[in-house]
Amino acid sequence: MENFVFYNPVKILFGKGQIAKIAAEIPADARILVTYGGGSIKTNGVYDQVKLVLAGRNVTEFGGIEPNPHLETLLKAVEVVRKEGIDFLLAVGGGSVLDGTKFIAAAVPFVGDPWDILAKQASVTAAVPFGAVLTLPATGSEMNTNSVVTKWETQEKLYFSSPLVFPRFSVLDPETTFSLPPRQISNGIVDAYTHVMEQYLTYPVNAPLQDRMAESILKTLIEEGPKTFANPQDYDARANIMWCATMALNGLIGVGVPQDWATHMIGHELTALHGLDHAQTLAIVLPSTLTIRRDRKWQKLLQYAERVWGIVDGSEETRITDAIAQTRNFFESVGVRTRLADYGVGLDTIPVIIDRFEKRGFVALGEHQDVNPEVVEKILALSL
Amino acid sequence: MENFVFYNPVKILFGKGQIAKIAAEIPADARILVTYGGGSIKTNGVYDQVKLVLAGRNVTEFGGIEPNPHLETLLKAVEVVRKEGIDFLLAVGGGSVLDGTKFIAAAVPFVGDPWDILAKQASVTAAVPFGAVLTLPATGSEMNTNSVVTKWETQEKLYFSSPLVFPRFSVLDPETTFSLPPRQISNGIVDAYTHVMEQYLTYPVNAPLQDRMAESILKTLIEEGPKTFANPQDYDARANIMWCATMALNGLIGVGVPQDWATHMIGHELTALHGLDHAQTLAIVLPSTLTIRRDRKWQKLLQYAERVWGIVDGSEETRITDAIAQTRNFFESVGVRTRLADYGVGLDTIPVIIDRFEKRGFVALGEHQDVNPEVVEKILALSL
Repeated sequence: MENFVFYNPVKILFGKGQIAKIAAEIPADARILVTYGGGSIKTNGVYDQVKLVLAGRNVTEFGGIEPNPHLETLLKAVEVVRKEGIDFLLAVGGGSVLDGTKFIAAAVPFVGDPWDILAKQASVTAAVPFGAVLTLPATGSEMNTNSVVTKWETQEKLYFSSPLVFPRFSVLDPETTFSLPPRQISNGIVDAYTHVMEQYLTYPVNAPLQDRMAESILKTLIEEGPKTFANPQDYDARANIMWCATMALNGLIGVGVPQDWATHMIGHELTALHGLDHAQTLAIVLPSTLTIRRDRKWQKLLQYAERVWGIVDGSEETRITDAIAQTRNFFESVGVRTRLADYGVGLDTIPVIIDRFEKRGFVALGEHQDVNPEVVEKILALSL
Repeated sequence: MENFVFYNPVKILFGKGQIAKIAAEIPADARILVTYGGGSIKTNGVYDQVKLVLAGRNVTEFGGIEPNPHLETLLKAVEVVRKEGIDFLLAVGGGSVLDGTKFIAAAVPFVGDPWDILAKQASVTAAVPFGAVLTLPATGSEMNTNSVVTKWETQEKLYFSSPLVFPRFSVLDPETTFSLPPRQISNGIVDAYTHVMEQYLTYPVNAPLQDRMAESILKTLIEEGPKTFANPQDYDARANIMWCATMALNGLIGVGVPQDWATHMIGHELTALHGLDHAQTLAIVLPSTLTIRRDRKWQKLLQYAERVWGIVDGSEETRITDAIAQTRNFFESVGVRTRLADYGVGLDTIPVIIDRFEKRGFVALGEHQDVNPEVVEKILALSL
């Protein structure tokens, strides 16, 4: 096992009716900005619940944060916060609203151009405190320090991370997910699954507890995913998916082990260039990454085949091929297509992506830092 | 899944050489009290490492905190803290030193008799901040809010819990465990295993991720335990045991599920009355509790038999009996005897324990709150 530091102070309020508890979690005299997205919280009752709980409090609203939140939109919220003297943010929505709110929180006290926080990884030294009401299990943003923001003008999708943007609290009420469109649940399952794979499917470092915990999340997603499509009102299935998505990226399964993240870095380019959903890009890229990188991931692929998919017969080669096929089948079975062609994207995107990586001073990706432009090209070519 | 709140802000610094990092974690101007136990940290080099890192800082020492820390000893430390104006505690040792330090932290600002914090569950409203350097993987105290203290005068062993006594940080360096006597490693493995069982082996509430995470810890303890006896200098085996022990009782596997803890409550009495090691009492009581409560724990016992021990053949009755036998065998295999008679304790202890429970206003124990004095009597009678 490698050395590690683990720290995660997010308070999780999980279960039905928990939105009522946010009143006690936000300072009584706070000037609050409620941030949200396209308005689905207004049709599913979450907006009303939040307004009721915060009745009589000093509340301003900022809606319209889009999927893959845009810098241009978020900077408008930064202006509101500065102008109104707001000192607490409440993000109500999915990963994009939470990621966007983290950026707002860090950008408000930032001196200079806030895009530097992502483009130049400028140091975040202060942030407005914030809490979250999560309505879409997927990104894990509710219990981590990560934020991904897209600059619309240049079609760049970049990330930053800072312990200053841990949510103070996050409410996870599975009932808020009952009304989600199936596509968002599909995406959430693929997103959580791939988050686990990025931290698990690398090479062995004798960390059996982390391995088993990662496999626990994968198996639970495989088991609970179909239930939640069969019956969207199945509270327990939604609760289990929701808790899996949080545990997939709160840092715990990744302590003391190598991590990959090449699939995410390549996927971000596909979203930025072609507007694909984040999870769609992961469903496309992950099977190809596993295939192209099978030699370097050999031992973990065998372990994954056996423990997650129960594949124990046949040659090592065959078992690995089967496990990757099962991964692709699972993504397809929960409704996410796994080929570039399924989304009308052709091979002509490859040189564009390579060029963009290189212009940003491409650092090789992956757990061995050896996924160079040639390897990215192979991965994308196999994804057609 | 049941509703839950999860919050754990302890910063874990894990791995070799991490003691050096405590300098940055303790405020520069702090008046520090270093607390420790019987002096093993002076022979294994940990004391020297800590002193070196804190050279030039304002440091006072308080040694002699015994296993199952005594109220009488801890109150002396409280006097030192008050008299010297100490404002940060650093616990260096195992669970007893950490538990004792939590009590000191809470007792210093407490108005009235600090024993009331345990005996009357008096509210803790303030505590001196503290950090920990853990040298013995077992109790999980390094990442939770629990503390167990023994009043020597009356032979009472009681606990308290408060979010104010979370360690600010805990250093877990597996190398500090290389010189531990085998008995302490044995005890640590049984302690961690039983912590998991108290949260896992109850009844199903459709929380598959929590179940699998609990099983992950059990299986890792079963797998890594023998390795650490075969080679005490096996860094990875020690690291894996250490991380298992922390994860067994940091709250995570117990979220949203029922919990038992009858074994612990009965075990505490055996320690208080007969001086048995905490883990020895657990090794004695757990197999009997599982046997006497098998009807109420039926489904989970079957799941445990299959997933942890691979027992799938035979009648349900047989599988459950086998799984309980395997549990007992595992405890014996890591060097902890599992019968009262092994420790010279006879059935005459039973009425004494029942009497003590009843004098404290016995509340029925267990996940159904139905382990009444008659059931406790049966469990203990079966433990002979």
